[in-house]
Amino acid sequence: MTKTRYLTGITPSGTPHLGNYAGMMRPAIAASRTGDVENFYFLADYHALIKCQDPERVNRSTLEIAASWLAAGLNPEHVTFYRQSDIPEIPELTWFLTCVTGKGVLNRAHAYKAAQDKNAESGKEGDDGVTAGLFMYPVLMGADILAFNANKVPVGRDQIQHIEMARDMASSFNHLYGEHFVLPEAAVDDNVATLAGLDGRKMSKSYDNTIPLFSTQAQLKKLIGSIVTDSRAPGEPKDVEGSALFQIYQAFATAEETAALRQAYAEGIAWGDAKTLLFECIDREIAPLRERYNYLMAHPQEVEAILRKGAEKARTYSGPLLHKLRAAVGLRPLTTASTAAAPKAAAKQGGAAFKQYREKDGKFYFKLVRADGALLLQSQGFDAPREAGAMIAHLQAAPQNLQSAMDNLQLGDSFSLSDVQLALKEIAES
Amino acid sequence: MTKTRYLTGITPSGTPHLGNYAGMMRPAIAASRTGDVENFYFLADYHALIKCQDPERVNRSTLEIAASWLAAGLNPEHVTFYRQSDIPEIPELTWFLTCVTGKGVLNRAHAYKAAQDKNAESGKEGDDGVTAGLFMYPVLMGADILAFNANKVPVGRDQIQHIEMARDMASSFNHLYGEHFVLPEAAVDDNVATLAGLDGRKMSKSYDNTIPLFSTQAQLKKLIGSIVTDSRAPGEPKDVEGSALFQIYQAFATAEETAALRQAYAEGIAWGDAKTLLFECIDREIAPLRERYNYLMAHPQEVEAILRKGAEKARTYSGPLLHKLRAAVGLRPLTTASTAAAPKAAAKQGGAAFKQYREKDGKFYFKLVRADGALLLQSQGFDAPREAGAMIAHLQAAPQNLQSAMDNLQLGDSFSLSDVQLALKEIAES
Repeated sequence: MTKTRYLTGITPSGTPHLGNYAGMMRPAIAASRTGDVENFYFLADYHALIKCQDPERVNRSTLEIAASWLAAGLNPEHVTFYRQSDIPEIPELTWFLTCVTGKGVLNRAHAYKAAQDKNAESGKEGDDGVTAGLFMYPVLMGADILAFNANKVPVGRDQIQHIEMARDMASSFNHLYGEHFVLPEAAVDDNVATLAGLDGRKMSKSYDNTIPLFSTQAQLKKLIGSIVTDSRAPGEPKDVEGSALFQIYQAFATAEETAALRQAYAEGIAWGDAKTLLFECIDREIAPLRERYNYLMAHPQEVEAILRKGAEKARTYSGPLLHKLRAAVGLRPLTTASTAAAPKAAAKQGGAAFKQYREKDGKFYFKLVRADGALLLQSQGFDAPREAGAMIAHLQAAPQNLQSAMDNLQLGDSFSLSDVQLALKEIAES
Repeated sequence: MTKTRYLTGITPSGTPHLGNYAGMMRPAIAASRTGDVENFYFLADYHALIKCQDPERVNRSTLEIAASWLAAGLNPEHVTFYRQSDIPEIPELTWFLTCVTGKGVLNRAHAYKAAQDKNAESGKEGDDGVTAGLFMYPVLMGADILAFNANKVPVGRDQIQHIEMARDMASSFNHLYGEHFVLPEAAVDDNVATLAGLDGRKMSKSYDNTIPLFSTQAQLKKLIGSIVTDSRAPGEPKDVEGSALFQIYQAFATAEETAALRQAYAEGIAWGDAKTLLFECIDREIAPLRERYNYLMAHPQEVEAILRKGAEKARTYSGPLLHKLRAAVGLRPLTTASTAAAPKAAAKQGGAAFKQYREKDGKFYFKLVRADGALLLQSQGFDAPREAGAMIAHLQAAPQNLQSAMDNLQLGDSFSLSDVQLALKEIAES
């Protein structure tokens, strides 16, 4: 049985705060460690372009958010963690989905309608200042999801409609071109823990009441010092109810510690002492993460390497899928067979096979040849036939072995490494 | 001085007829042979998906149209002839342009408005049956043009507005992200020759009065036989004015032949004889083309190879351009420098360099290393340092030499051939 695949997009904008961490990142990372699901996390930098036209900020933010998730414990070996713009299949699929999406559907998308309403309120034309990017955003989001045939997409209530749109795109495409997509579902968690901010309201960028996840110890201490409390003096019993300080503490402390602080409140702990407890409690959890975060921020090339590797992993899925989708819509290599015969025959026509042979130089060679005769790959000469055979087995075992084997191989004219990997994948699947 | 670049898109739908040939293909191909301009021709198969959801037809039509242009004399060595869907830069650029295009602008596009008007006439909702593909078509068209920084786009009057939109997209992008695009212009030829059809009206698919460009001789003869004439008997003088037969003849005959037929009309040539003259005249020009067309249709893999080669040629432009555009919008490799410094410094950061060295095995090696230390390419060991040097020179001379040199080279982890080609191109340009 295949595992349920969860896909989460993270828009690289802003700096994560403790509220994001406790409410979203920490539970998501914990969930990613359970073995019964498959998790895809991606930095939605194409989406960032809709709102942010400051290239430095997009770039900086991508690094910060990636480093934050890694520092917080996301394990790129266990999940697939990548950057949207490293997946060329996504923009191409966006176009395919654009062609099967009714414009009327997009007119009704929440994000677009909100922009329209705002214009109406200020007496402007409905589309004033609205870019096509905002309008087309649900289609890009559909491609994000469908490029990996994700089953579940964890979202807030406001995003359910966009997941439904992705379902509709999947259905339309399946209807027109055959069953290629699973229908994704929104996974809405109504029990998302929210953290109180400095002023007691929900911690949120828009209230300017946040504690950054990765401030320094000194900054963290200072910010905690500024959490609003009442004016009860030391010795006076204090209410845990409505205490932002207590609520934040609870999110980081053990049950015993929480019980102890509750007791201390009743016994009249001084606010200063309670804040020191809170600082220590948060810092205990964050300090090792902060160290890792600072390290990653100072070594962006390591983050870059992780994301590239993640993209490679992600593309082992999206690459072959788009190959099939291209064929399904009619963007296929030109062959006489495919033009006359059914899609099935056309796919077969594309199949490649290994051919082994001996040359006049006495050495043993192999090549990978497509059904139409095109040469995909040519080996060097091997001294023994089993050396050639071992190399073929190595390639058949995993298409990604191709790259490291390239010093013994040569690509056919006008074919790329990924063409050959695709052919290998097809052989493996057939 | 750089040559003016013309870009022409051909939507692969339907079968070309003599009217398309005489009015469009023949003059375009003649123009492509002059040395003072650069010509890009592409099969717009992504566009075909907007209207055609029959994959076999898209595929078949791509072959027919490509074979027609090649048979009619388009020389892929002199022009850049490619298939849109072979250029991954186009969908990506489509997204970038989507983000800088006002939705209001698209609301006013002719093709979309025409669909709306048609719905209004039949009492339907404006967007009834309108796909997002139809709505977004001008943005895809903008990407087609701007991915190659084409100067001139030959179009009919009805398409001028879409070229103006592409100009606006280019301006907006340049304004936000720096001067990356030239502003394209529509090249409208108001003197497009139209050919009369079988019934005397303009030859057009919508009138069902066409003569296919590549019918067999027998079909051609039969269709010419069905051209409408008046009922004047042999011996009676005939009018060239308003004679479809004469007008078609003119499009294929020499001036002398045309004068001779005019004379024959005056002298009362029989319609049957005039039709024989017309058949011979057309067949004289088309027969060698037909032979080539039939050959190509029977050898689709040759057309495929030509298109792939064309795409490779086209991508030597669009690849590096998109690389710059990605950096411009903020989709860059993560480096500490790029996040703090100006774009210029960031670009420099990406620069790669060759390093030559000797290993313990006594052999001479080189590698191509990016400024951030990432290994792009590793050579095998050479017996002499000048062998390593010659290979470096070979790669520096032309990035496309890389592929054939790959049996002596190995790609760095997580880099593709095109990554390395891009780096080589940057070295060449710096």
